[in-house]
Amino acid sequence: MRVLGVDPGLTRCGVGVVEGVPGRPLTMLGVGVVRTPPDAELGDRLVAVEQGIEQWLDEHRPEFVAVERVFSQHNVRTVMGTAQASAVAMLCAARRGIPVALHTPSEVKAAVTGTGRADKAQVGAMVTRLLRLAAPPRPADAADALALAICHIWRAPAQNRLQQAVARSRPRQAVAPHTAHATKGRTT
Amino acid sequence: MRVLGVDPGLTRCGVGVVEGVPGRPLTMLGVGVVRTPPDAELGDRLVAVEQGIEQWLDEHRPEFVAVERVFSQHNVRTVMGTAQASAVAMLCAARRGIPVALHTPSEVKAAVTGTGRADKAQVGAMVTRLLRLAAPPRPADAADALALAICHIWRAPAQNRLQQAVARSRPRQAVAPHTAHATKGRTT
Repeated sequence: MRVLGVDPGLTRCGVGVVEGVPGRPLTMLGVGVVRTPPDAELGDRLVAVEQGIEQWLDEHRPEFVAVERVFSQHNVRTVMGTAQASAVAMLCAARRGIPVALHTPSEVKAAVTGTGRADKAQVGAMVTRLLRLAAPPRPADAADALALAICHIWRAPAQNRLQQAVARSRPRQAVAPHTAHATKGRTT
Repeated sequence: MRVLGVDPGLTRCGVGVVEGVPGRPLTMLGVGVVRTPPDAELGDRLVAVEQGIEQWLDEHRPEFVAVERVFSQHNVRTVMGTAQASAVAMLCAARRGIPVALHTPSEVKAAVTGTGRADKAQVGAMVTRLLRLAAPPRPADAADALALAICHIWRAPAQNRLQQAVARSRPRQAVAPHTAHATKGRTT
């Protein structure tokens, strides 16, 4: 199973690709950060994030994309940018038909360190050990992206069984936008 | 000046196109709502919003896109979806090189009703009057999208002068994603 983990952000969007199955050693295929300049227009930054994510999808062809679930109780100033960058990552994956999974920060920490309250250093240390790296990936966003991918590989079997059960009970439909139109003089 | 106003949302994304200049009667060219099913996967919903916005851009070729600025102090349950839908709208516009403007709900209400604390009914009534419609656009998201477009037409001259002044002092650069890559064994 090949997973692209995305730690969403506008200034630094962590990306990491891990391949493996539960119970076997994991392999890191790539890690990095997509950056956009804080002083650029918001729309242009979103386009740059899209281009960066597309490059990673082109290069690594992941079967799953795991994105950190954004909560609004975080820092008010940064949460909007995080939500917007995560939307772009989910959009890029879904456009290609790649399943998108969301994992909360506590789920990711618990998966790789055994505790949902681990700090950045613990997460970085465990990612380094699990992927047999020479040193912790920098910046922390890159390590977090790898942790997301690892979390998904380990949790996916249970999640997939659940999704399959849901799919059996309710056939999934393709989503097309339903647009109501009106022209001048008429109102919908 | 032709403006597409977008009242972002995942379940209902209001869209409205208005043409005009400050001080002259305005013309509505179209109004509607892009809807996505609440029980669909988030990634698929974002793709559907993207397709809907693209259709509106294709059909009406606006020169500006005005999007409601999302604040995180709103309802925690809906604010993430709103931020994500607004990201998709901004992305679609910026990809085409269409300038994106953000206006707060109070700016929009103040522009069309004279007070930043107007309710939905007042906004709907003023939009109906300003665009000489037979009845207020429904649902409220559609009326809000038209109000955003009107607000942009009336406020744009001042905003554009400001943007031009900023542009003169700091040449704007195209934003390309800066991606740090690393392969297995190396860390960035």
